[in-house]
Amino acid sequence: MATGIDEFDLIRSCFARLSSGEPGALDLRDDAAWLRPEAGMELVVSADAIVAGVHFPDTIDPADIARRALRVNLSDIAAKGARPRAYTLSLVLPQTVGLDWVEAFAASLGDEQREFGVTLLGGDTTGTPGPLTININIFGEISENSMITRSGASAGEDVYVSGSIGDAMLGLAVLKGDLTVENGDDRAFLERRFLRPDPRVTTGPALVGVASAAADVSDGLVADLGHICSASNLAARVDLEAVPLSETARGTVTDDQPLRINLLTGGDDYEIVFTAPVSARDSIELISSETDVAISRIGIMTEKTSGAPEVVVLDGSGNPVEVGVGGFRHFEEENAR
Amino acid sequence: MATGIDEFDLIRSCFARLSSGEPGALDLRDDAAWLRPEAGMELVVSADAIVAGVHFPDTIDPADIARRALRVNLSDIAAKGARPRAYTLSLVLPQTVGLDWVEAFAASLGDEQREFGVTLLGGDTTGTPGPLTININIFGEISENSMITRSGASAGEDVYVSGSIGDAMLGLAVLKGDLTVENGDDRAFLERRFLRPDPRVTTGPALVGVASAAADVSDGLVADLGHICSASNLAARVDLEAVPLSETARGTVTDDQPLRINLLTGGDDYEIVFTAPVSARDSIELISSETDVAISRIGIMTEKTSGAPEVVVLDGSGNPVEVGVGGFRHFEEENAR
Repeated sequence: MATGIDEFDLIRSCFARLSSGEPGALDLRDDAAWLRPEAGMELVVSADAIVAGVHFPDTIDPADIARRALRVNLSDIAAKGARPRAYTLSLVLPQTVGLDWVEAFAASLGDEQREFGVTLLGGDTTGTPGPLTININIFGEISENSMITRSGASAGEDVYVSGSIGDAMLGLAVLKGDLTVENGDDRAFLERRFLRPDPRVTTGPALVGVASAAADVSDGLVADLGHICSASNLAARVDLEAVPLSETARGTVTDDQPLRINLLTGGDDYEIVFTAPVSARDSIELISSETDVAISRIGIMTEKTSGAPEVVVLDGSGNPVEVGVGGFRHFEEENAR
Repeated sequence: MATGIDEFDLIRSCFARLSSGEPGALDLRDDAAWLRPEAGMELVVSADAIVAGVHFPDTIDPADIARRALRVNLSDIAAKGARPRAYTLSLVLPQTVGLDWVEAFAASLGDEQREFGVTLLGGDTTGTPGPLTININIFGEISENSMITRSGASAGEDVYVSGSIGDAMLGLAVLKGDLTVENGDDRAFLERRFLRPDPRVTTGPALVGVASAAADVSDGLVADLGHICSASNLAARVDLEAVPLSETARGTVTDDQPLRINLLTGGDDYEIVFTAPVSARDSIELISSETDVAISRIGIMTEKTSGAPEVVVLDGSGNPVEVGVGGFRHFEEENAR
């Protein structure tokens, strides 16, 4: 961080207020915090490190960085069925970052906390000669023994995904200058879907007891469904036509089938991909309408076939289409390896 | 991380085995973990980010980096009275790091886990164009409402510190080539005290109900006692002659009083500085002998005097000596700002 910024001043001026509501945070005046789940509940914990220039373009502003950092973590625990409670933040700051930046970052976190009902529990701030790196550990609460894992799927179950897929990949391409979208509203929508993912914090908890396995879509729909397949020792078939695209994404990819397929591997969607028995179809429709989030049935879980890919995507004629490895690795490889 | 290393392979080959014993870690096959304190207990959480070249010289080997990273975190929760349980690890790896490095790092973590009874709960691995950055969130367990905070001290109470102070600062100076120590055993002892701090994992929990306030000595004895003073709205007087030095440190600083004073501000000691009422003197002697860790009474808590420093250090004649700001900031300023 810039010369003259003191860690303790930063905590007092920017971050201490973000801890109010979590008594164990002790106003960030201690070097540790205490945390006790409510009676009958347990914690769901997820850890995430994001690096400027690797996980997001280093041109985006501190308010958007804060928003995105917290939301991708909220998405992790929402997909497990947990309700957000608290988080720790370790902020590794390059010299180019000044007090203004940190103030804007913290103010944005404050807005997000109010929106999602989550509180800063503790953290750490330090300098680095490298890029901005943000580490969040997020803590959700869930009834004991209720976390929706990746490993609970059975063959014959339906595969679902919330919201729409591919917007964030297109939004990132716009932000990086790799894709031109003429219509201003469409451009803003796609960028927003990358910068401000919508963690499914009400839909996820509603899926407890209904979904058999779930994951959030961060690496790409195909990759994250693949994680469910691996953990459940199964495979999956996905119907390309059933994968939900926003109107904007549909208008952007038009008839470019390879690009359309890429949306399934692009990642950063922060939707929930999950499986459920056929008997749960009505319940899932109800959850969709009650939480006001679209949920699309996109495929089916199958037994593994040796030599075949875990996730097979079929086009409108039922023929398998070629999908790349996809996911975050593309962007990361370009930038960090 | 180096081209060709895959995050998922790394998890399977190096880290998954470190999660055994913590059922909520789900063999690191999920994107989140569950964690439930034992009945009547709560969690103590501490987050720490350390950066190569900032918090440790980037020449030290992966086994030592792993050891130090975990131990400094164990120290944080030990000073709060908690027993270690689990931790998350977010590893941000530069391109120069290959599979060998990660294997050595993980093997060393395994040794440390066995020594301290702590288990890997989850984490994240990603690449960076910057330096190696390690983020640990550590989780301890403690009886409900028992965490020893910084804010519980009262005027008139004794100030204590465990172990010896200043060895790590001298060890770091040796490692950086800023200090020459002729005797090989002394040199090895000092380096070891920097590279392998001894978190006071049995002494800390024994202090629950005895110590009124505590902190671990990471920023320096004066700075960390200062944190207790701030949080407790008090000041402290420390008797320079009472601050415990190892025989090696004493031999190294000899009659160089400024250097001797520097030991009180150097940091990285990972001892526990704490306060306790005079009535607890016998209990503390017993805890020292039962946990086989020296505990020295080094001063007294006082009311604040406006304009005076929070922590006053007195020499053998009772005269205040000049102490710098001290702590980690020196090293960090040189390296990262």
